[in-house]
Amino acid sequence: MLVYWLDIIGTAVFAISGVLLAGKLRMDPFGVLVLGVVTAVGGGTIRDMALANGPVFWVKDPTDLVVAMVTSMMTIILVRQPRRLPKWILPVLDAVGLAVFVGIGVNKAFMAGTGPLIAVCMGVLTGVGGGIIRDVLAREVPMILRTEIYATACIVGGIVHATAWDTFQVPLEQASMIGMAVTLSIRLAAIRWRLKLPTFALEDRQ
Amino acid sequence: MLVYWLDIIGTAVFAISGVLLAGKLRMDPFGVLVLGVVTAVGGGTIRDMALANGPVFWVKDPTDLVVAMVTSMMTIILVRQPRRLPKWILPVLDAVGLAVFVGIGVNKAFMAGTGPLIAVCMGVLTGVGGGIIRDVLAREVPMILRTEIYATACIVGGIVHATAWDTFQVPLEQASMIGMAVTLSIRLAAIRWRLKLPTFALEDRQ
Amino acid sequence: MLVYWLDIIGTAVFAISGVLLAGKLRMDPFGVLVLGVVTAVGGGTIRDMALANGPVFWVKDPTDLVVAMVTSMMTIILVRQPRRLPKWILPVLDAVGLAVFVGIGVNKAFMAGTGPLIAVCMGVLTGVGGGIIRDVLAREVPMILRTEIYATACIVGGIVHATAWDTFQVPLEQASMIGMAVTLSIRLAAIRWRLKLPTFALEDRQ
Repeated sequence: MLVYWLDIIGTAVFAISGVLLAGKLRMDPFGVLVLGVVTAVGGGTIRDMALANGPVFWVKDPTDLVVAMVTSMMTIILVRQPRRLPKWILPVLDAVGLAVFVGIGVNKAFMAGTGPLIAVCMGVLTGVGGGIIRDVLAREVPMILRTEIYATACIVGGIVHATAWDTFQVPLEQASMIGMAVTLSIRLAAIRWRLKLPTFALEDRQ
Repeated sequence: MLVYWLDIIGTAVFAISGVLLAGKLRMDPFGVLVLGVVTAVGGGTIRDMALANGPVFWVKDPTDLVVAMVTSMMTIILVRQPRRLPKWILPVLDAVGLAVFVGIGVNKAFMAGTGPLIAVCMGVLTGVGGGIIRDVLAREVPMILRTEIYATACIVGGIVHATAWDTFQVPLEQASMIGMAVTLSIRLAAIRWRLKLPTFALEDRQ
Repeated sequence: MLVYWLDIIGTAVFAISGVLLAGKLRMDPFGVLVLGVVTAVGGGTIRDMALANGPVFWVKDPTDLVVAMVTSMMTIILVRQPRRLPKWILPVLDAVGLAVFVGIGVNKAFMAGTGPLIAVCMGVLTGVGGGIIRDVLAREVPMILRTEIYATACIVGGIVHATAWDTFQVPLEQASMIGMAVTLSIRLAAIRWRLKLPTFALEDRQ
């Protein structure tokens, strides 16, 4: 039940991040709506396509789709001056959404019968997929591939979640909670203290 | 039957738009072919993957694929000087293709058993998906998200189509025709009188 | 059996190409890992989604996924100075990977019951899909659509492969070998003698 509400929040926050990015591209309002929705549901859509476990989640149950649409429309109408929002709000909510999405992805994969390796991949895909599509459509190098400890947080949280369930037989719901807490903590710590891994850069390319 | 031929025309026009965009990127001719085909069948491909209703449409029936290939090749061979085409031809044919694709998407979703909300989404996805992939591959911010009343026309036409069938019990074929006429009219009006919605732009981003 | 090992090599080489491209974008190491893996398995993933033949290949059998991950990580750790590699190595290995991926794509399509046209498309999609996703994520116009005789080599090799099996009843394994040899030879010849097709460029766009 907590996961249900966290999922709603994660969906809403991801939709808002899509709309805010669209704001700098001078888009048609319905183009903005498309970008917000794609950001919110894109990761889970690719996951469901890869698992081939019937229609994608928003076809089976449109709740998340409606949440993404309504949030995007409300953001378009209300957020004229993002300046007024305290700066930390969006990154923190985004971290919550990310942690929840990774957890949901891992769970869905386990429920579809995959092993822990694939489950972690599905968790990461669910967490970062929507943001990658958002940045590609907005013609940016995906933030998620560049930002400090973003994919990293997903991978570590996903591994903890999958290991707890698969190796230590922790019940799936508790395992999810532990994994989400790990993803969230790492990401919040990275935001708070601007933690970074050394970037990988080659001096000379062929 | 009319829909069948409109679908062929829509597919051909979308392929041409892919080839013409490729023309400014100095591509290998077979790269151009790939771009033309992807533009023509990309939207319906994503729709079918999301509906998970068996293999995508061009695997089940390659007609559209062949149309896209032949049109792309003929465009590569024949269109050396697009200057000679009257300027209004491509946008108008593109509007026809768009209207038909939205209608087909809505119908396929209804036939797969979805409700009206999902059907409208599938219609929009079918209409704009190929063009979005085309623009992403050509490294442009998707025209469809920016251009005046493009996604908007799809959404309104799709809603009319879905409402006619779902709420007013209009037979599916007539409902399609009405929806397509609405999408087409809005788009043509937008082209003719350069109608725009106020763009959504934020002054200050976080 | 030979195909099995060629597939491993192809997967590894594609992962390396993703990591090397990431090297110029100053990415987070785990972002680099994501890009390497996506490059290696992206084409086959789209193919399997389009064929809708159950979960995608790396969900059914994670071997390729593990190969892509391990290769990416080893590349991140070891390749600090790509300068030291002889210049021809990567393009040649890439050509091997490409040839193998096209052959595997054609075979998978035939085994899923498609006709030769769709099989060739699936071969091309498998060969070029991962590289296209890699270049889109790195914000480049896909090399594969521009480079001399890249898509072309795939198309010709795929057609030979499909025709050998479908028209001349050559057993599938031999047909694969012939097709792969054709793709590889064309691509190696194009690299060696810098062969190009005349690029398709329009002087004037509407």
